[in-house]
Amino acid sequence: MKIAVDAMGGDFAPDAIVEGVMMAAAELPENVAIVLIGKQSVIQELTQKHGIHTVANIELVHADDVIEMDEHPTKALSQKPNSSIGVGFKLLKEGQVQAFCSAGNTGAMHVGALFSIKAIHGVLRPCIAGLVPQLAGGYAVMLDIGANADCKPEVLAQFGEIGSVYAQYTFGISQPRVALMNIGTEDQKGSLVAQAAHQLLKEVYKINFIGNIEGGDLFTGVADVIVTDGFTGNTMFKLGESFYSVAKQRGLSDEFLDKTNYESIGGSPILGVNGNVIIAHGISSPLAIKNMIGLAIRQVESDAYTKIAQALA
Amino acid sequence: MKIAVDAMGGDFAPDAIVEGVMMAAAELPENVAIVLIGKQSVIQELTQKHGIHTVANIELVHADDVIEMDEHPTKALSQKPNSSIGVGFKLLKEGQVQAFCSAGNTGAMHVGALFSIKAIHGVLRPCIAGLVPQLAGGYAVMLDIGANADCKPEVLAQFGEIGSVYAQYTFGISQPRVALMNIGTEDQKGSLVAQAAHQLLKEVYKINFIGNIEGGDLFTGVADVIVTDGFTGNTMFKLGESFYSVAKQRGLSDEFLDKTNYESIGGSPILGVNGNVIIAHGISSPLAIKNMIGLAIRQVESDAYTKIAQALA
Repeated sequence: MKIAVDAMGGDFAPDAIVEGVMMAAAELPENVAIVLIGKQSVIQELTQKHGIHTVANIELVHADDVIEMDEHPTKALSQKPNSSIGVGFKLLKEGQVQAFCSAGNTGAMHVGALFSIKAIHGVLRPCIAGLVPQLAGGYAVMLDIGANADCKPEVLAQFGEIGSVYAQYTFGISQPRVALMNIGTEDQKGSLVAQAAHQLLKEVYKINFIGNIEGGDLFTGVADVIVTDGFTGNTMFKLGESFYSVAKQRGLSDEFLDKTNYESIGGSPILGVNGNVIIAHGISSPLAIKNMIGLAIRQVESDAYTKIAQALA
Repeated sequence: MKIAVDAMGGDFAPDAIVEGVMMAAAELPENVAIVLIGKQSVIQELTQKHGIHTVANIELVHADDVIEMDEHPTKALSQKPNSSIGVGFKLLKEGQVQAFCSAGNTGAMHVGALFSIKAIHGVLRPCIAGLVPQLAGGYAVMLDIGANADCKPEVLAQFGEIGSVYAQYTFGISQPRVALMNIGTEDQKGSLVAQAAHQLLKEVYKINFIGNIEGGDLFTGVADVIVTDGFTGNTMFKLGESFYSVAKQRGLSDEFLDKTNYESIGGSPILGVNGNVIIAHGISSPLAIKNMIGLAIRQVESDAYTKIAQALA
């Protein structure tokens, strides 16, 4: 198994990325290698400093170009096919790696996935899934947390299916409880889209739809899959992540609150595409990168995207 | 000054309401009285038990009927004009009380306000404002947190004006910083509505619009007024409130997290109507009721709704 990592993406790249890769490499399973993609002239000093050439489970792949954080995703990808992001998707599409991870330009990662490995046949809108720690242990999958700010009801209903398969195979949850994030428990509550999505979710026989949940239920273990549009999902996910920093500012230390720290998960998968793609916060620290790689390995092992494709066939 | 309180509304009414009123009465300023509205036969035992007749600053007003939590707001109000909610609004409209508070049927409170004291001339959509504690002290006003699940851009822009006036007069903040809750800092980010609202907010010369903020900024003191649609606002506000219960479940005790406890604010004002109306969570405890009354007094003193009417004239 090979996990490709973009050395150039992120606010603290390449240093933070390379450090995170070194941390991950120290604990990798035997059959796993990391493919670090970056501009040779930029990362050479770092790779030498860390002695990467001596590490058996890290390979280096050169990429000429870099897509900056503020570049327009589609333009950047067509103009810079030899960027670390472009090269990463090329390797993924060709099957030379089994996952591609980056803390770089999120839009470019999303568009890049759509262009290279493409959306799974039948998927209306690929999305980004956020993993939310639950008080009693484990995680819930919230989707979408940012790829699609506006969603039609049928797109939300499909997120329920996609999230359910992901939770089943990546977290081993049988019959994952699927809930719709809403502003009241009654069926008729919510925005027009939420009301319509609620009705559609009720009709998806393949999932265990438990109805609406509210904002206060994010961490309480009432659902395994939380369906929402990308706008609501993003604002809530970021508020949830801030719990850790609020606690830290208050001088509080707690195992559960540590899990709300973005670093502890490391990344968010793009679901609904024909491959394993994980994106991470621009501010990713070495620890976040290390954990993102761990998530990628888990996802490759679960073969979630193949299962999602089968479920939607 | 007279503050009317609905004795019958809420999951733990009338007991919790009456207790909260007693707590408030013990600390009321000299010129303030509470008008407790409820069905005589139901609250008689309680009022006797608490010796309300002996408390100088509490008056009792009888109301024949009760609007239940699950009743359809508009139907209930027209069929039950002598409900505690109906009577409360009657007293408010007639100027016999200066504020009306209830932990009862939120929809009925909202519709009741629209029917009786009516929307301020020029207000597109009255809304519910949530008070969000800030790490460095004080509060931010978030609106809308639930009255309008779907909002047009111009409605959001107007929330910015309304919230700004409220923050200025109720919290004494000069030139309140108004931000739009969004999924990225750049102007073009967000849902279609958020993008359009962003442009409109830029053009409202009367406010100090500081641009977009993200979910992680809810508590960090970057804004005094947070504009959002009722769906996003409700989910975020409830998630924010849950910080207190999550911390409690983890055995953590902290002054700031205590402030995220819904009980500590007690209520949320309906803004954009010609009077002071505060609604509280159905689960309101006596402490929440007491604090809701405190908020009502503050709001009456600030005369916020008159200032809002002037600003929009």
